[in-house]
Amino acid sequence: MNFKLQLLLIVSITTIYDTRAQINSEVEININKLYNISLSKGQSYKWLEHLSNQIGGRLSGSLNAERSVLWGKQELESIGLDSVWLQPVMVPKWVRGTFEYAHIETSPGNTINVPICALGGSISTSSSGIRAEVVEVKNFQELDRLGREKIKGKIIFYNRPMPPSLISTFDAYSSSVNQRYDGARIAAKFGAIAVIVRSINLRLDDFPHTGSMSYGNLPNNQRIPGAAISTNGAELLSSMLSLNPKLKFFFKQNCKNYPDILSYNVVGEIKGNDQSNKILLVGAHLDSWDLGDGAHDDGAGVVQSMEVLRLFKEINYKPKRTIRIVLFMNEENGTRGGKKYAELAKKFKENHVLALESDAGGFSPRGFSIDSNDENYKKIITWKPYFKPYQIHYFEKGGSGSDIEFLKTKNNTLIGLRPDSQRYFDYHHTSIDTFDAINKRELELGAATMAALIYLADYFEL
Amino acid sequence: MNFKLQLLLIVSITTIYDTRAQINSEVEININKLYNISLSKGQSYKWLEHLSNQIGGRLSGSLNAERSVLWGKQELESIGLDSVWLQPVMVPKWVRGTFEYAHIETSPGNTINVPICALGGSISTSSSGIRAEVVEVKNFQELDRLGREKIKGKIIFYNRPMPPSLISTFDAYSSSVNQRYDGARIAAKFGAIAVIVRSINLRLDDFPHTGSMSYGNLPNNQRIPGAAISTNGAELLSSMLSLNPKLKFFFKQNCKNYPDILSYNVVGEIKGNDQSNKILLVGAHLDSWDLGDGAHDDGAGVVQSMEVLRLFKEINYKPKRTIRIVLFMNEENGTRGGKKYAELAKKFKENHVLALESDAGGFSPRGFSIDSNDENYKKIITWKPYFKPYQIHYFEKGGSGSDIEFLKTKNNTLIGLRPDSQRYFDYHHTSIDTFDAINKRELELGAATMAALIYLADYFEL
Repeated sequence: MNFKLQLLLIVSITTIYDTRAQINSEVEININKLYNISLSKGQSYKWLEHLSNQIGGRLSGSLNAERSVLWGKQELESIGLDSVWLQPVMVPKWVRGTFEYAHIETSPGNTINVPICALGGSISTSSSGIRAEVVEVKNFQELDRLGREKIKGKIIFYNRPMPPSLISTFDAYSSSVNQRYDGARIAAKFGAIAVIVRSINLRLDDFPHTGSMSYGNLPNNQRIPGAAISTNGAELLSSMLSLNPKLKFFFKQNCKNYPDILSYNVVGEIKGNDQSNKILLVGAHLDSWDLGDGAHDDGAGVVQSMEVLRLFKEINYKPKRTIRIVLFMNEENGTRGGKKYAELAKKFKENHVLALESDAGGFSPRGFSIDSNDENYKKIITWKPYFKPYQIHYFEKGGSGSDIEFLKTKNNTLIGLRPDSQRYFDYHHTSIDTFDAINKRELELGAATMAALIYLADYFEL
Repeated sequence: MNFKLQLLLIVSITTIYDTRAQINSEVEININKLYNISLSKGQSYKWLEHLSNQIGGRLSGSLNAERSVLWGKQELESIGLDSVWLQPVMVPKWVRGTFEYAHIETSPGNTINVPICALGGSISTSSSGIRAEVVEVKNFQELDRLGREKIKGKIIFYNRPMPPSLISTFDAYSSSVNQRYDGARIAAKFGAIAVIVRSINLRLDDFPHTGSMSYGNLPNNQRIPGAAISTNGAELLSSMLSLNPKLKFFFKQNCKNYPDILSYNVVGEIKGNDQSNKILLVGAHLDSWDLGDGAHDDGAGVVQSMEVLRLFKEINYKPKRTIRIVLFMNEENGTRGGKKYAELAKKFKENHVLALESDAGGFSPRGFSIDSNDENYKKIITWKPYFKPYQIHYFEKGGSGSDIEFLKTKNNTLIGLRPDSQRYFDYHHTSIDTFDAINKRELELGAATMAALIYLADYFEL
């Protein structure tokens, strides 16, 4: 595109403001300040650079998770909040171990390496690894049809791709994730000795995606190891199997589960002026998977949440209600932080009028998914005109966030920030979820969009 | 202020969009097919891989531009259109030459290299380069204030950043591009011997951004060379100047303008069934700058336009009107292809009811910028409900595209696809506008969105 077109584009701005007559100008001006500061003098990108590159991956129970707690507390204190504290919570501790390795044995002695990673919570293989024939399936019904005889002693290879035709990639994720989460537990019941799961990724590439799995109530001696294979690896394995259904797959991993360990949610707040018992919560999860740096998942949400409170201080806004930030621990493999926070909120009879979570990546914000009663929903959608200049258009009923959903009551409102979802699963739970995958402006727009929503909920007393 | 009234109005608008009764189910189903096929069995990404990696940068008049013309024609023929042809057009030929080099001489003998590139259309320096003191300015008014005495014999350094607070990065581009386009012409009048222009990029990085510049009517012997410096280079130069305003800047480049040369627009069409004299045009520009591969600018638009016609063939849709694709030559440094196409359309009294251009990158589509009379605009916005499942929400009046704007009449409609703009200027006119910067799904969503609009314009007879 060349420059002449741009002159014409400016005309379009006028149209955006056609509904000006009905807008409260104080609100409009303050929202504009929030966006301006986030985009021009924002802190979120610098914070994320530190969290990603100086701390890095921070799985619950790890040293890095502990470092991120201390860092979060220190940075929140530096903003000048009214109070900042740590909320103790016991979390699971799983460690990836020192090796992960796999190959396809196409014929005796001929092997092709493929990228795998242990699924979070999986047990290890024996130190000499697992070598067995492979049964490829798309779903659990196929296991039923095959039956124990054809599965016993083999590796089950779950290879159902994410459906590309769904517009929200989160919907595509939902339709695929049971392979990863329940696959080992179910295959074990048919006598399988391990599972290999196609990475939950729409794109074909070489990065295996980890993520949590569960053995449910399966006794320890019946548990089998589970690993994810990259999408290219899955395509290769499937095509090799079509040539030679008797080929052997070999892999080994030495991950391990340890006893629960003490960690913390990081909490801070700006005390409300005259309705301080009403809490507007903004948050994200501080823990991440261990393969990358957790830049999108959920470093982005962490620094955006922090930026919301910093922006209020910057514009010197004195909220009526208490604006609280919570950086939750252990979303990825237990949501213990979210549960503990809600348990204490209930115990202390805290009134969470609104909770907003950012946990869908630091991409261009599109709007909000709203979990509330009709009355609150109707009130929120009257705020749409304030968001129009910022191209925030999505205000639909739906789920909110894994950490805040435990706060649900009949009368309160839980909201998830919804960025553009197309690129999220390129990075999710992989070694490439790193700072270079973040676009500064997209991150900053998300922070400002969250701040605007919290501001509106305070100003118009949701 | 009458906020409550507006709330009522907004609610009623929302209700209209939520009402399924308004939706024609045949149309809904066909649009869904277009998206499904583009996302599941699309051709656009494969085409772009070839255009980017097997052909590459294709500046007007280059061998690669010629190769892209032949490729475009061949691929359109392979879709099975009713006709495909080439439309001859004379285009400028400018060649970057064999070297571009610059350094800051902080003190005699001490130099720091900085990344530059010649601006498109610039003359060369002498073979020994230009070495002179630098005058940093933000705009042309500063030149007036400084006057000829302070500028004569020096290099003017235009260093006005893109404003980060504008939400549309194209608006930010518009407010910055005159430095690049007119900077050399204006500085020359004050006796400057060259200009260095801050790259038009919101981000700080090391990639200089080329783009067109013009000498206007300036006589040949008064023309001075112009080059872009990367944003990091511009920051460095500015900070060095604040330490030592007398420092020297050195650069050389041996780019060259040649006489005009013959090239082509590539045109193809599916003939309309019963209103074939009415043309619905979809298009993009085939040429690109030479530094990268023109993947976003405008390879994405080229393959999306091609995909529109392929999708109609795939769903076996027989349009009432003629659906025509035009791959325009020479948008970047002359828009000769667009002008020639419009000239011939006028000569042959062709009726272009609608023209749709994609030239804003292969990012997640957000909607359309619409240049039409009120009647047509009102008709188009009644189609919004069909786009809602695909999160296409932006339907605003504004400019369309540089190639199609010459087709403007009182009654027709020109539209530009509007993808998310946040990342566009990270790549625009640089060496990193390459295939790896493309997300497959975002590209495919754009193609389907264009196809849906053309389908609606045909079905509902815009």
